[in-house]
Amino acid sequence: MSAEIIDGKKISDDIKSELKAEIVRLKNQGVVPGLAAVLVGDNPASALYVKMKAKACEKIGIYSEVIKCENSTTHDEMVDLVSELNKREDIDGILVQSPLPDHIDEPAITVLIDPGKDVDGFHPLNQGLLLAGRPRFEPATPMGIVEILERSGHNPAGKNVVILGRGFLVGRPLSVMLSTKTRLTNATVTICHTGTPDISDYTKKADIIVAAMGKAMFLKGDMIKPGAVIIDVGTNQIDDPDHPKGKRLVGDVDFDSAKDIAGAITPVPGGVGPMTIAMLLKNTVKACKIRNGLI
Amino acid sequence: MSAEIIDGKKISDDIKSELKAEIVRLKNQGVVPGLAAVLVGDNPASALYVKMKAKACEKIGIYSEVIKCENSTTHDEMVDLVSELNKREDIDGILVQSPLPDHIDEPAITVLIDPGKDVDGFHPLNQGLLLAGRPRFEPATPMGIVEILERSGHNPAGKNVVILGRGFLVGRPLSVMLSTKTRLTNATVTICHTGTPDISDYTKKADIIVAAMGKAMFLKGDMIKPGAVIIDVGTNQIDDPDHPKGKRLVGDVDFDSAKDIAGAITPVPGGVGPMTIAMLLKNTVKACKIRNGLI
Repeated sequence: MSAEIIDGKKISDDIKSELKAEIVRLKNQGVVPGLAAVLVGDNPASALYVKMKAKACEKIGIYSEVIKCENSTTHDEMVDLVSELNKREDIDGILVQSPLPDHIDEPAITVLIDPGKDVDGFHPLNQGLLLAGRPRFEPATPMGIVEILERSGHNPAGKNVVILGRGFLVGRPLSVMLSTKTRLTNATVTICHTGTPDISDYTKKADIIVAAMGKAMFLKGDMIKPGAVIIDVGTNQIDDPDHPKGKRLVGDVDFDSAKDIAGAITPVPGGVGPMTIAMLLKNTVKACKIRNGLI
Repeated sequence: MSAEIIDGKKISDDIKSELKAEIVRLKNQGVVPGLAAVLVGDNPASALYVKMKAKACEKIGIYSEVIKCENSTTHDEMVDLVSELNKREDIDGILVQSPLPDHIDEPAITVLIDPGKDVDGFHPLNQGLLLAGRPRFEPATPMGIVEILERSGHNPAGKNVVILGRGFLVGRPLSVMLSTKTRLTNATVTICHTGTPDISDYTKKADIIVAAMGKAMFLKGDMIKPGAVIIDVGTNQIDDPDHPKGKRLVGDVDFDSAKDIAGAITPVPGGVGPMTIAMLLKNTVKACKIRNGLI
């Protein structure tokens, strides 16, 4: 038996269509959501991400502005830039692309962003509201995982969910989100990590596994329960002489062995990745609505 | 075999002695930690808690001030009071005793407290720093649980820990704290709750169980693994005709059946309870040191 392949691209396209329709309604009320993305230095991956985000904004009618800064930008210049963006009426969301150069204190910049414009959900105040059970902006990747589970019909409520990885971006916030009592979460969640003696002990009993520890093809078919739902958050480049480019992108799941045991699985690419950008757009529209008193 | 009874009273007394010695050193530098507790209305349990906290402060040399307000105090008057306390140089910690009367917006008051004086660790900013892995003030009860495990020699690192209850005060922050990679945490943590189909499935495999769901004597001996460490956070009053007062205090653990199976167990009272106040004092001393540039 081969698993259902969960199409993150299709689901994210559906979400973007819904947002596009909503933005048309907002524009009819004279409101245009705006996102500013700040890119410092010339990291090619960062540049690509920012470009993709800007393009996604434009496609659905969000005003997008990309601010490119030299690698030599000082911490104080970043402070001034963020302060300016905080003040601007036309900007609802501020995104500072990570990582910043070492000479800039990244947590200090994150905390400076107006929490009402923190569409990445990384400001400690928004993280705290999440932990307190009163979320405003949830971080995009875990938010995308909850949404992909819902829209693919794999409601986690009452399920045994195992998260691999306790990172700040995915594992930790996701564990809070999935174990909260809302319509579609309410799961029993375990976080496994490098300090877990035998991860298979946990994964073999899980109904849903989210692999987000950043180890290429870590989760194999013999570590999962037949019929389990597998969400793969990893994006790792590995060498592959058979591939035209000599390398290829793989997840934290060994897709080939897992797909024969799992009930459903997200591919890499085309699974969680496209959901992350869709959630950033969703948060931007939400920020705009909150700032304009529409929710 | 009968379990080791973990003496929270003794451990908290040790901590208070250490803090007392530290406060003497601070006073020699001309610094006196100060805690202000705000009590609104005439809830007898709240009045008792505040009195106990004030007494504990005085005993170890923390300046303590209890501000009693009428039940009719308005939200705006609370805002003014907290703003005043935020400004006062002699006050390092501000504690607003929960619950507040319904006509006061409690989350709005919590967020108004200077995060640098939030010794309860309930301000969303401090909750967010906790979730982000950069804690400043951790909430007192989960902090007391981590400390009681450490000081009783039951290091959770590498252990299977099951937390019963996903509350804002204990379960959720504790799950984050215990699964973080620090010297003594680094555990594999599962949170169970009312949405968990069979809690015994999880508790029977746990090396450490923290019961914090507020159900009198829920965790029985036959739900635990022989030798497990049991931390009981519950405080429930039940009717007991054999007791002189006709009622008595019990935890979330059925102590009598659990103590024959467990390896170690905290009693109620005398377990986690005294630790909570000790941690509040510890946070107050920490706040004072941070505010005076001493850490």
